[in-house]
Amino acid sequence: MTHETAVVHAWISMSLDGYIAGPNDRPGNPLGDGGERLHEWFFDAKGSDADMAHESLARSGAVVIGRRMFDHGEEPWGDDGAFGMPVFVVTHRPREPLTKGPTTFTFVTGGLEPALGLAREVAAGQDVAVAGGQIVMQCLREGLLDELRLDLVPIILGGGVTLSDGEGLDDAQLEPVEVVESPHVTHIRYRVSRGRSRTP
Amino acid sequence: MTHETAVVHAWISMSLDGYIAGPNDRPGNPLGDGGERLHEWFFDAKGSDADMAHESLARSGAVVIGRRMFDHGEEPWGDDGAFGMPVFVVTHRPREPLTKGPTTFTFVTGGLEPALGLAREVAAGQDVAVAGGQIVMQCLREGLLDELRLDLVPIILGGGVTLSDGEGLDDAQLEPVEVVESPHVTHIRYRVSRGRSRTP
Repeated sequence: MTHETAVVHAWISMSLDGYIAGPNDRPGNPLGDGGERLHEWFFDAKGSDADMAHESLARSGAVVIGRRMFDHGEEPWGDDGAFGMPVFVVTHRPREPLTKGPTTFTFVTGGLEPALGLAREVAAGQDVAVAGGQIVMQCLREGLLDELRLDLVPIILGGGVTLSDGEGLDDAQLEPVEVVESPHVTHIRYRVSRGRSRTP
Repeated sequence: MTHETAVVHAWISMSLDGYIAGPNDRPGNPLGDGGERLHEWFFDAKGSDADMAHESLARSGAVVIGRRMFDHGEEPWGDDGAFGMPVFVVTHRPREPLTKGPTTFTFVTGGLEPALGLAREVAAGQDVAVAGGQIVMQCLREGLLDELRLDLVPIILGGGVTLSDGEGLDDAQLEPVEVVESPHVTHIRYRVSRGRSRTP
């Protein structure tokens, strides 16, 4: 009954030259060459960085990710599945649900919106987190994202994967509403809105 | 005699998906498709954005740019040459100096460091500005930049030119030292240092 106030949000680490993963990302090299430097702040966080790392999952009751992120992450996430909550994986390839400690992975073949619907249901009033560049962009394109936090890491990767990697977006309205600074990362929170109507 | 305290600095506008120009940039389309949206804040600046737009040139006594930027800009910059101060153009193709109102363009074929040396001389204690993605990256690579301001514009271009576009940088130390917020652009100032020694 509190679904109306719950938010669909995402966070993404980006280098100063605009890459969210290094070149040659694949299973076994999930963040691309040098891309692990994008996420070091998250795992060794102190001060305001620790607050940002913590809030990402603490405010969420469920997570939606893409199949590519799952395939890359299944092994490195280990026996507890890293998320510690229900995860819905958007995919074309059906697979039986998977339980890893406190984390459950449910594979949803019907598309992004049904996956978000299931996540909202399970989150029961808590926020829903969306993770992975491709799914985040799809949410932006379809007007399904309420909030995006960009974690800007001052490194120069030289190549790799950009957030959009292809089609632009003319009508997304991203308004910076909060900046949290640290000597290591600049965290910028954007409120997202779009001109087109959204189903509640 | 105040050269020691003068700073070599740059500023660059980047989209939320990491592009500093849209696709298909060339003379006649200097910022690439849709890239003019990256610079709208600069020309229609208010409040803190106006402060940032103003300081970019106000603190500088000379500018160093690349030939590509000059070729793209010569026509749109108009009769006064836009910069209003001496500009040194790093190029392989010699050309006679060019005066446009208060702006002078001097073409330097000896490379980046001689161009910076000439700019420092002319700036006479004021800062030297470096502009254009390729020259900014070259300055970063060669340890010649002291300060970089990233102006992060919340638009999604979908493709184009990234700051590094190729080779990464392992040893550049970029530390965020100031953030200036506005509803339109997030301005982040980085102090740049490198492990390698620099000639004074």
